[in-house]
Amino acid sequence: MIRITIIGSGNVAQHLIKAFSASPLVEIVQAFSRKKEALSHLLDSEKIVTEFTALKNADLYIISVSDNAISEVSSQLPFKDRLVVHTSGTTSIDVLDSKNKKGVFYPLQTFSKNKTVDFSIIPICLETKNQNDYKILETAAKSISNAVFSISSEQRKALHVAAVFVNNFTNHLYQIGQEICEEHQVPFKVLKPLIQETAEKIKTLDPIDAQTGPAKRRDSVTTNAHLGFITNENQKNIYKILTQSIQHNGKKL
Amino acid sequence: MIRITIIGSGNVAQHLIKAFSASPLVEIVQAFSRKKEALSHLLDSEKIVTEFTALKNADLYIISVSDNAISEVSSQLPFKDRLVVHTSGTTSIDVLDSKNKKGVFYPLQTFSKNKTVDFSIIPICLETKNQNDYKILETAAKSISNAVFSISSEQRKALHVAAVFVNNFTNHLYQIGQEICEEHQVPFKVLKPLIQETAEKIKTLDPIDAQTGPAKRRDSVTTNAHLGFITNENQKNIYKILTQSIQHNGKKL
Repeated sequence: MIRITIIGSGNVAQHLIKAFSASPLVEIVQAFSRKKEALSHLLDSEKIVTEFTALKNADLYIISVSDNAISEVSSQLPFKDRLVVHTSGTTSIDVLDSKNKKGVFYPLQTFSKNKTVDFSIIPICLETKNQNDYKILETAAKSISNAVFSISSEQRKALHVAAVFVNNFTNHLYQIGQEICEEHQVPFKVLKPLIQETAEKIKTLDPIDAQTGPAKRRDSVTTNAHLGFITNENQKNIYKILTQSIQHNGKKL
Repeated sequence: MIRITIIGSGNVAQHLIKAFSASPLVEIVQAFSRKKEALSHLLDSEKIVTEFTALKNADLYIISVSDNAISEVSSQLPFKDRLVVHTSGTTSIDVLDSKNKKGVFYPLQTFSKNKTVDFSIIPICLETKNQNDYKILETAAKSISNAVFSISSEQRKALHVAAVFVNNFTNHLYQIGQEICEEHQVPFKVLKPLIQETAEKIKTLDPIDAQTGPAKRRDSVTTNAHLGFITNENQKNIYKILTQSIQHNGKKL
C-alpha cells in the first residue's frame, strides 16, 4: 500500500484524487488546498489540509499546481528526504527543491473539468533521480494506468513539442475546416466522421502509411484548384506549406 | 424497392455493393466490372456484367470509377433518360453525359480495402439536376446511411478542401509528432490517446472552444523554447505558421 498526499486542487489534482481513491493499492493520506471547499466533494474534511505544517508523513507527495508555482510550493514543504514529484509536462525535474527526493509524475492528457476520465488508458510519464524512488512512483502510476513510461526531462520536452503538433495544431486544422465549410454553407458535421476515422487509423497504421490525398499523390491539378478556391490568405499559406511538407516527406527543405 | 446498378469494381463500388445488399429497401440489379472475378465474392455471377450492352433497366446507375474515367464511362452507356450518378468528391456533376439524368452520390469517407465500414454513420452527399431524381437518390442513400446531405457541386468543392485540412494535413501533423518522438527516443504510442481525445472532443465542442496550448495562451516563453528545441527547419516553419494562425484566430494576416 503506497501512501500518497496530493498538493493542489486544480483539474489534474482532482482527477488524480478520484483515480487513486478508486485504487486498492493506494491510500490517499491527505490533500492540500488553499480552500477546503475545493476538494470537499472528493475527500473527507479531515483529510484536506490548508497549511503545509499540517502535512503528515507519506510515501509520495504529488505537487499538482500551475507550472510557475511548483518551485515555490516545493521549497515551502516543511520536511526533507521524502519523495516529492510534480505533474507538469513542461517543467524540468530540477525546479523541485533539493531538500527532498525529486520526481515527475506527468499524465499526458487534456483534462476537462466536468468530463469523466478513463485513467487506465492515459499515459503516465515518470522520472526520478534514483531507481528506488522510481519503483514507488511506478507502483503508484500502475495502480491507476496501464500505460506507464519512463521519460526523462529531455524526452518530456520532445513529447510536449510533439503534443503541440498532434493536439493543438490538429485542433486548429479542424477549425480551418469548419471555417471553410461555413463560408460555403456546408454543415461542419458532414466532416466529423472523417475526423474520427483519421484519428482511428493511427491506432493501427503509421501516419506515413496512412497518408492520402492530392499532396501525397502529387496531384498538382487538384492542389492548384484548391489554392484557387481558398480565399483566406492565411489558409492558403498553411495549405501550401503542409502540401510541400507532405511532398518532401519530412525531409529538410 | 429501388433497383440499383453499380458500375465499377474498386473500393467504393465494393463497399456500396455490400451496404446495398444488406438493405431491404434496395435491390442490386447488376454490377459492371471489366473483370468478373473482381466482384464474384460479392454478387452472383449472373448479376456481374462485363459489357455495357448487357446492362438492364434500373432506377439508378451508380458510376464508381476513377475520377478521370467518369466522363468516358457515362458517355458509353447504351441508354438515355435514366438516372446516372457518380461517387466522386472532386468531380462536377457536369462531367456526366447529358443523354441521361445526372446526379452525384458521394460517400465522404476514406475507404480501406480490408476494413469493414459502418455505412450508417458515413455522410452521403447528394446532388441532382431535378427534384424527382433527388428523391430516388435520397431513398437509396437513406437505406444505408443516417447522415444524408444535399450538397451542390460548389459546396462539394469546399467540403473537399476542408477535408484536406482535417484529414490529409492532420495526418501529416501526426507524422511530424512521430518524427519528433523518434528523434528523442520517445515511443510514439505515448501520444496516441491524446490524438484520440483531440478528435473525440470535436464531437461535442466547436474547434475554437476546444483550442488549448501555448499558442492559444500566447505563452511566448514556451513557444520560443519549442522553436529552439525543434531542429528540422520545415517543422519549425510549420510550428511558426500554425502558432501565428491560432493567435490571429483565423483572421486574415
